[in-house]
Amino acid sequence: MQEPNTLGALDAAARMAAGTLTSEALVLACLERIQARDPDVLAWAHLDPALALSEARERDRERREGRVRGPLHGLPIGVKDIIDTATLPTEYGTPIYRGHRPAADASCVVAAREQGAVVLGKTVSTELANRHFAVTRNPHDLAHTPGGSSSGSAAAVADRMVPLAFATQTGGSLVRPAAYCGVTGYKPTYNSINGAGIKLLAPSLDTLGVYGRTVADAALFGSALIGFDMPSFPSAAGAPRIALYRTPQWSLAEPSMAAAFDAMPARLQAAGAAVAELALPPAMDAIIDASNIVNDYETRRSLAYERVYHLDRLSPTLGGKLVQAGRWSRVQYLDALRTVDACRHMLEDGLRGFDVLVTPSAEGEAPRGLENVGKTAFHQMWTMLHVPSVAVPVFTGPSGLPMGVQVIGVRGADERTLQAAHWVEQALRG
Amino acid sequence: MQEPNTLGALDAAARMAAGTLTSEALVLACLERIQARDPDVLAWAHLDPALALSEARERDRERREGRVRGPLHGLPIGVKDIIDTATLPTEYGTPIYRGHRPAADASCVVAAREQGAVVLGKTVSTELANRHFAVTRNPHDLAHTPGGSSSGSAAAVADRMVPLAFATQTGGSLVRPAAYCGVTGYKPTYNSINGAGIKLLAPSLDTLGVYGRTVADAALFGSALIGFDMPSFPSAAGAPRIALYRTPQWSLAEPSMAAAFDAMPARLQAAGAAVAELALPPAMDAIIDASNIVNDYETRRSLAYERVYHLDRLSPTLGGKLVQAGRWSRVQYLDALRTVDACRHMLEDGLRGFDVLVTPSAEGEAPRGLENVGKTAFHQMWTMLHVPSVAVPVFTGPSGLPMGVQVIGVRGADERTLQAAHWVEQALRG
Repeated sequence: MQEPNTLGALDAAARMAAGTLTSEALVLACLERIQARDPDVLAWAHLDPALALSEARERDRERREGRVRGPLHGLPIGVKDIIDTATLPTEYGTPIYRGHRPAADASCVVAAREQGAVVLGKTVSTELANRHFAVTRNPHDLAHTPGGSSSGSAAAVADRMVPLAFATQTGGSLVRPAAYCGVTGYKPTYNSINGAGIKLLAPSLDTLGVYGRTVADAALFGSALIGFDMPSFPSAAGAPRIALYRTPQWSLAEPSMAAAFDAMPARLQAAGAAVAELALPPAMDAIIDASNIVNDYETRRSLAYERVYHLDRLSPTLGGKLVQAGRWSRVQYLDALRTVDACRHMLEDGLRGFDVLVTPSAEGEAPRGLENVGKTAFHQMWTMLHVPSVAVPVFTGPSGLPMGVQVIGVRGADERTLQAAHWVEQALRG
Repeated sequence: MQEPNTLGALDAAARMAAGTLTSEALVLACLERIQARDPDVLAWAHLDPALALSEARERDRERREGRVRGPLHGLPIGVKDIIDTATLPTEYGTPIYRGHRPAADASCVVAAREQGAVVLGKTVSTELANRHFAVTRNPHDLAHTPGGSSSGSAAAVADRMVPLAFATQTGGSLVRPAAYCGVTGYKPTYNSINGAGIKLLAPSLDTLGVYGRTVADAALFGSALIGFDMPSFPSAAGAPRIALYRTPQWSLAEPSMAAAFDAMPARLQAAGAAVAELALPPAMDAIIDASNIVNDYETRRSLAYERVYHLDRLSPTLGGKLVQAGRWSRVQYLDALRTVDACRHMLEDGLRGFDVLVTPSAEGEAPRGLENVGKTAFHQMWTMLHVPSVAVPVFTGPSGLPMGVQVIGVRGADERTLQAAHWVEQALRG
């Protein structure tokens, strides 16, 4: 029999429903995998195996009594360590908060438990979910970065330590680690999963999302949290109408990504999709600078406590960013927000007649070394535009590491975006 | 000599700059006023006089050494108790968090101290900044409500216990207590003062703002926090172009407010303003239901921890709201957000050719009794539209209690809105 920790979320849930797997056995298998692998991968910040097992046994008891909480019943999840948990430490990836124990769980953790999930532990975040690297390594090749900031969540899901995990994105913190580790990342429409109890960075950008090993697994987790019905896979609507988009920063794409992306349309068309290049007005290019200004301006203010009282305990990377960000004036910030508003409408106009657009998930494979967590060039604009994005690992790079594409829809059209992402996953993996 | 606690913020700052007042003397006078009056008014949730005095003496020392931090140097402030402070308890107005001591100060508290403010103490909030009443009484008549949820901040500023205080608004929590207590409330453009470390309620609505005793005092505090230059009063632009707006819920205005509002245009015109009735499309009326749906939907999710684990410790008012809010579907919520987006554009179109609109701050005087903290009818739409609003106490009601109007501008035009509010204050008080 397959080791339970290697099961995807939907498979594990089906076995628990059929009575051939218990949550306890699943959690045990995950803990064993962590014990074997985490000394190398370093994906977990805090674990309390006894607590996780007791939650799992409680879910098993409830199931025996016919009290199934929801679609996540008995499934273990990883919780990124910038998300508050009252039962486990929450250190936000910085020594400033060493041993911090919040008074309450974040609302997303409450929502996950309401749907039956078991909190397996806290996963490593980079320092305050910013760009200074953490200890976690890429499970496909320990010499490479897993990307950041949701480093631990992506590595843990990729390495079969847990089937599902929370991730957050302000720049590219969800999509990039998904791409580098070869998992599916689902960044919902902005403000779809409530953010109470998550360390605030740039409130106009901060977006909570999830990882799974397939589009269907990520959709299971995301839909349960947000509160929509699990989409049907494959969609009854058939092949999607796909717009290809080479972003304003296309020159940053590595040759391997550019080649894979160029070869993709023929494969999508062969599988039945209508594919066309997306033409957006040149004014759209302003989204790049505007979103960087919004990120800088807001993050400097959100992290005022850390900047003013603990600058010496911040990395030079983050400390420098927060100080430098002081150069943006309120007028520049308000101008940037107006640009963003205009770009949102440009994108919605441009996508009329399409179901989704497809664009790279990152510039290429995960860089070698841990220090460079990758660029935000292929992510920041989508975070700022508040659109749902599903990162699907569909390519393999020259070093044998995963690469992928984002399937992006219009705001609020999360179900349709997930269905198109599932279609792309099947067409390109197949 | 005038008792220092009765000085407005600008006056006190000027005296400190001139060397005729120390921060220590000012804080002492405020503490004495609190000692004398707070057994009746009950505006304060947590005080640590020794800590406040030591902060004040440190500000005085800095001033002697020529190190003036900013325009708030030496001014005591009240901090609403849903705003985190590491140095004082933060209980969010509910026994669920009794004795809670956050790990960090909210970013707005850090920003205030960066500009020289002294944290005098924490002011009473209604339960989780919602509609269940708190202990605080209206200092103009203790038998009346001060309004909620920023009850303690409004009462403390009105009663000369502190010149400035923080307030927050999700429905009408800043403007209504300002109106009922007769202080100036400045609710800036949405997301102007960073919200890190403030208890999240409805993230699309939550807005942090300030109280002072005059428009100029509120502008001093707000501009220092947000980071724009103190506007010049009076404005070089002269009398503003004013649109009068009777909201879609005008029928809720009490006769005394309706009469005062009807008599106002002639007074504004006599003082030199161009005044016209604002005509907005009937489609604008949809903002009322839409903003209520957004508030319900998001608050239910933000307070998931309290709803799921502590429902028995919530008031029936709030517990009931959170449970009832489960009736709104995600589709209804997304529809409401689209309606709001359309209404924002309608308002901006409607205000072309005007500097500001003027509308009542509340339906009338503060109701008698503490249980009824007032309606949100005259506030919720402006919170949802993200526009700056300055509540100015300019009328007196039939019971001798204050009543006022809101001066509202377009998003981002905070300086112009404050200048118009100052003009209205002078024209109607004079």
